[in-house]
Amino acid sequence: MTFSSKHREPFLTRGTRLWESLMDVARIGAIEGDGSCRLSLSDEDRQARDLFANWVREAGCELRVDAFGNMFGVRPGSKPELPAVLIGSHLDTQPHGGRFDGVLGVLAGLEVIRSLNDLKIETEHPVAVVNWTNEEGVRFKPGLTGSKGYIGKLTLDDEIVSKLDGSQYFKELERIGYAGRDEPPKVRSYLELHIEQGTVLEDAGMPVGIVTGVQGVRWFEIEIFGVDAHAGTTPMQTRSDSFMAAAELAVSLRSKAMSLSPDIRLTFGRVDVVPNSQNTIPGLTRLGVDLRHEDAAVLDTFEKTVGEAVWSLSREGKFAATVRRIMEVPPVRFDPALLAELSDVASLLDVPTASLPSGAMHDASSIALVAPTVMIFVQSRGGISHNPAEWSEPEHIGLACEMLARAVLSQAIETGKSRQRTEEYGAAALT
Amino acid sequence: MTFSSKHREPFLTRGTRLWESLMDVARIGAIEGDGSCRLSLSDEDRQARDLFANWVREAGCELRVDAFGNMFGVRPGSKPELPAVLIGSHLDTQPHGGRFDGVLGVLAGLEVIRSLNDLKIETEHPVAVVNWTNEEGVRFKPGLTGSKGYIGKLTLDDEIVSKLDGSQYFKELERIGYAGRDEPPKVRSYLELHIEQGTVLEDAGMPVGIVTGVQGVRWFEIEIFGVDAHAGTTPMQTRSDSFMAAAELAVSLRSKAMSLSPDIRLTFGRVDVVPNSQNTIPGLTRLGVDLRHEDAAVLDTFEKTVGEAVWSLSREGKFAATVRRIMEVPPVRFDPALLAELSDVASLLDVPTASLPSGAMHDASSIALVAPTVMIFVQSRGGISHNPAEWSEPEHIGLACEMLARAVLSQAIETGKSRQRTEEYGAAALT
Repeated sequence: MTFSSKHREPFLTRGTRLWESLMDVARIGAIEGDGSCRLSLSDEDRQARDLFANWVREAGCELRVDAFGNMFGVRPGSKPELPAVLIGSHLDTQPHGGRFDGVLGVLAGLEVIRSLNDLKIETEHPVAVVNWTNEEGVRFKPGLTGSKGYIGKLTLDDEIVSKLDGSQYFKELERIGYAGRDEPPKVRSYLELHIEQGTVLEDAGMPVGIVTGVQGVRWFEIEIFGVDAHAGTTPMQTRSDSFMAAAELAVSLRSKAMSLSPDIRLTFGRVDVVPNSQNTIPGLTRLGVDLRHEDAAVLDTFEKTVGEAVWSLSREGKFAATVRRIMEVPPVRFDPALLAELSDVASLLDVPTASLPSGAMHDASSIALVAPTVMIFVQSRGGISHNPAEWSEPEHIGLACEMLARAVLSQAIETGKSRQRTEEYGAAALT
Repeated sequence: MTFSSKHREPFLTRGTRLWESLMDVARIGAIEGDGSCRLSLSDEDRQARDLFANWVREAGCELRVDAFGNMFGVRPGSKPELPAVLIGSHLDTQPHGGRFDGVLGVLAGLEVIRSLNDLKIETEHPVAVVNWTNEEGVRFKPGLTGSKGYIGKLTLDDEIVSKLDGSQYFKELERIGYAGRDEPPKVRSYLELHIEQGTVLEDAGMPVGIVTGVQGVRWFEIEIFGVDAHAGTTPMQTRSDSFMAAAELAVSLRSKAMSLSPDIRLTFGRVDVVPNSQNTIPGLTRLGVDLRHEDAAVLDTFEKTVGEAVWSLSREGKFAATVRRIMEVPPVRFDPALLAELSDVASLLDVPTASLPSGAMHDASSIALVAPTVMIFVQSRGGISHNPAEWSEPEHIGLACEMLARAVLSQAIETGKSRQRTEEYGAAALT
C-alpha cells in the first residue's frame, strides 16, 4: 500500500515516532512470538505505566491519576476551564496478547500531543491522553473497569476481587503505586484509535475504518433436554437426541438470522453435550449463544425468533427446551458530528475508509454514555488479536493517527475556527 | 399383560424361583433406588460369586473355575464326552447398575438346571451355566474379558490393568479366590438371555425378542478445523465456523443414513468445540461418531458417505476436515438353526415375539465366533439399563426363561429325539 505517497496534505504527526513508542512498550512483558503479557495491575503493567508517565511529563503534560488508577496526561489549553478533548485506550493486555490492542490508542494520543508540541499549536480546550485501567478484564471482572469508574458505573465501594489470584483491585492499585487521588479531567469529546480485530477492512482493502458505534450484545443459554440412551439399542425413529435437535436448531437459526440482517452476528461458541460419551445419545445439549447487531430493534426481533424456535421444539413433545438471556449490552451509537468530522478528514487526507460497527466492547462504549465519542479502526492482518501474531501495517497506523490528530485539533479549537485553523497547521507542518 | 394365562403348554421352569434368586443377588452391593454396584473382582463380586457357587453345587453341578475366573456350573449328561449346552451371562454390574443386566442370563441358566432337576430330566449333552468375568469393562478394559479369554482372543500373557485403581486383573482374581485352574467345558451351543436395553419390544408390545445377531459397530472421529475468531468482529460471510459446519454435517449425514437403511443407528455422542467460549467462533469441532448396523455392506457404504462428506467439506477451502475410524467390531449373525428353534418354541408356548438385532455387545458376541449361539431379549421398561431404574416384568422374564429352557432341552437331547422328548417333559410337568 502506498497511500502516504499520494496525500495532498502534509502530516502533523510522525508515524515513525509512534511506531518506536509502540515497540518500546511491547518490550515490557514481552513473550515469545513478538507478543506481550501485561495483565492489569501486575508488575509489568506498572512498568508500562511508569514509562508512559515519564513520556507524558516529558511532553509537558500534567499527570493525573484517579482513584481507579486511570492515568491522564493533560496538555493545558488556553482556556483551562473548558473540558478536555480526550484520546486514549489501555496499556493492559491479554495473557497471550499482541503489541497493538489498546496500546495503540494510548500512544496515538501521546503522538497527537507530541505533534501539537512540535508545531507549537495552542488549543483552547485542553487535550488529554488517557490510559484506562483493566480494559481487558482478564485479571479482574468486569473489564472496562477504569472507564466504568470514570462514568460512575463502578464506585469505590464495589468489591473487585480477582478470580485468578484472589487479589483485590484497589489493594493492587496501591501496591503498584497507582491508587491516585487526582480529579480526572472533564471531557468535551473522546476519541479512541484501535485495531479492528476483524477482517472487514482487510477484506475491503481499506487501511482505516470510521466506527459508527458498538454492536449491542445479547447472550443466551439454550438447554435442550432429550433422553440419554444407548447408541446401539435405540432405533433412530424413537430417539430424543438432544444434539441432533441442537444441530438442526443452530442451522435453522443461522439461516433466519442472515435473512433478517446481513450485518447480524450469531455465534454458538459454547456447546456442551451430556454425558459426552461416544456410544450414548446425548440427553442434554447446552448452547451458549452470542448475538450482536448495531440496532436494538433487530436484536429484539431475533430474540423473539429464538424464543419461538425453542418453544416450538418443546411443543413437539420429544424435548423439553428452554432459553434464557444471560447477558445484555445495549448498542452504542457514536456521535454523528464526530463521524462527519472523521469523514471530512479522511477526504482531505485522501485516506480510503470504510464505515463499520465495532463488534467488540471498548472503553469508548463507556465514555459514549456521557460525552460525544468516536472510534477509528486500523486494519488488522487476518483480524487476529489477543495473540502475539497481532499486526497492523506501520503505514496504516500512521494514516489513522493523522486522522485522529486532525479530528482532535478540530475539537480542541473553538467551533467556527476549527477547519480553517487545522488547515493552517497543516501548511505550517510543511515548513 | 396376561400372557401366562393363555399358554397352551405347562411350564418346565418356575418364574417365581428365578425372580427370588434375582432379588437375592441384587441385595449384594445394593445401592439406593433398587440398584446394585458390583464392579468386577470387587468384594461385592466375590460375594455374588460365592452365592452362585453355592447354588450351583446345591443344584448338583460340578463347579469349574477357569484361569479367567469364568465360573461354569456343569450338570452332567448321560454322554459326558459330548460338549455342553452352555447358558449364561455375567454377574458384574455397572457402578450405578440395575438388578437385571447380566444377572438375569446367569440365573435363568441356573433356573433351567434347577427345573431339569425338578423334573428329573436326563440329557445326553451336559448342560452348563456360566458366569463370565468382567463383561461390563468398567473396572478393567477391554470388557467381555472372560468370554474373550474363553475363545482365546485374550490370553494369560495379556496385561489387564485397571485404569480406575491400578489393580491387575489376574492378581485381583487371586485376591478374591477365583483364579481357577479348571478346564472349561467344551461348548455345543450357547444361549444367553438378557434384557433388551432398548425400547423396540416395548414399543411393539412384545414381551420377548429373538435376537438375530449383534450389530457391527464402527467408531469415527471427525475433526473440522476452521478459524477461531471473535464473535463480534467477524461478519457471518467471512467466518470459518467449525461448529456450524459440524452441525450441518450431522444433519445431512443423519438424513443420508436413514435413507440408506431404516435400521441404521448413527449417533454423535461426543461433541467438543474448542475453545468453547461464549464469544469465540469455534476454530475446532471434534465429533465422536457411533455407527451400527447388522450388515457389514451397509456399514461399508455409509463409511464411504462419511468420507465423501468430510472430503467435500475440505474441498470448499474454508475448512480442513478429517475423519478417522477409531474402532471396529464386525457384525455377528446368530445361528439360523437356533433362531428357528426359538421361533418354534415361541409358537408352541404362544409367546408373542419380535426379531431384532442387538445394538449392544454381549458375551454372546465372543462365543458366536466359536459355536452356534443365540440370544433372547426380554422387554425392558423404557429401555433403561446401567441404572437402578432397570426393570423387566416378572411375567415377561418367566416367559423368556421358559423359551430358553425349551431351546436348551432341544439342544441337549440328541438330534431327532429332541422335539418329541421336549413335549413329553412338558406333559410331565403338568402332573
